[in-house]
Amino acid sequence: MKVHTGEIVLYSEGTFSTFNVTEQVRDVVRESGVREGMALVYYRHTTGAVLVIEHESGILADLEDVLERIAPVAYDYLHHRRGYDTNGYAHIRTALLSVSTTLPVVEGDLDIGTYQEIIVLDMEERSRPRRLTVQVMGL
Amino acid sequence: MKVHTGEIVLYSEGTFSTFNVTEQVRDVVRESGVREGMALVYYRHTTGAVLVIEHESGILADLEDVLERIAPVAYDYLHHRRGYDTNGYAHIRTALLSVSTTLPVVEGDLDIGTYQEIIVLDMEERSRPRRLTVQVMGL
Amino acid sequence: MKVHTGEIVLYSEGTFSTFNVTEQVRDVVRESGVREGMALVYYRHTTGAVLVIEHESGILADLEDVLERIAPVAYDYLHHRRGYDTNGYAHIRTALLSVSTTLPVVEGDLDIGTYQEIIVLDMEERSRPRRLTVQVMGL
Repeated sequence: MKVHTGEIVLYSEGTFSTFNVTEQVRDVVRESGVREGMALVYYRHTTGAVLVIEHESGILADLEDVLERIAPVAYDYLHHRRGYDTNGYAHIRTALLSVSTTLPVVEGDLDIGTYQEIIVLDMEERSRPRRLTVQVMGL
Repeated sequence: MKVHTGEIVLYSEGTFSTFNVTEQVRDVVRESGVREGMALVYYRHTTGAVLVIEHESGILADLEDVLERIAPVAYDYLHHRRGYDTNGYAHIRTALLSVSTTLPVVEGDLDIGTYQEIIVLDMEERSRPRRLTVQVMGL
Repeated sequence: MKVHTGEIVLYSEGTFSTFNVTEQVRDVVRESGVREGMALVYYRHTTGAVLVIEHESGILADLEDVLERIAPVAYDYLHHRRGYDTNGYAHIRTALLSVSTTLPVVEGDLDIGTYQEIIVLDMEERSRPRRLTVQVMGL
């Protein structure tokens, strides 16, 4: 039984930056030597999310549009009253989405649907490196 | 230590079809021989979700109502501009919900709350078989 | 390889009660003796959620505000027609959020971001003890 922990670093412009990390996660799965098990993809920040969706530009734009209606970027969030930042929209959207996902590993590779991709959505209000932990566990 | 991978196939009418798969997941857990560990329930498509909720028809209808207000079925999504399909609502709702869930296994069975059920929500716009991977890992 | 199952009991006032359980989850990780692996935090009820967010009072109030617009407390949900309870808002919000999260364990501790905390949101309409399973698996 093996546990392998890898890292992916993204150089993000923030606000609504998306990254298809599927191939990078597959690389960590291969490095792990795990043949059958699970891969946890975990975003280490409070203003972003990990999604399993189809990677199509229209879907990403539609999602931004829907999130803008649910939790607009320009809004007087209580979070801003501390005076540190104005990224309340990003914290709320992170709560509604999720910072992680777990995927099945079969025969040494991710075993996901044909159109499924692992998309990281970074919503921080400024440009920053963003870190993901990819942890693979199994036989 | 064991890893067991099973499959559940659902014959879905799409749009807002719901399936209580709790007993089928329990069957895979029993087949696995795992006594203590985790079960990953993973939906292999981009237009559906796996939820852990109470299985009551009113809740499901209320959820459809709320999702219709967030991401209506009849809307001019950018995703439709490709001309392949008109299921933008399903992709957005999948992003807001999640294609998988992980559940604790204790004493050879799912160890979940009394009223919790594992509900698959298929939102594809037409009838199709839908596949779930159930992966059980542990001792 | 080890699997350790712990429990956290919260005495909740309900409606929109939040609990930062990060230190309690860390305690279960330490008890487990697992050095490298995964920790599943699983809420055993149908009217609450487990979130990984920054723990700041403004963010929590903003989240309540956004959830109130998506699925208001005072609304004629179909779920209420059974005559048992009036917590439709809580079931819908549970479906939109999630009852569990999985976190990486590295060097015998949770390996999460600096500002990330594990927050349990209980939305039951009355005061009740609420139970979480914390399951740690790994080497």
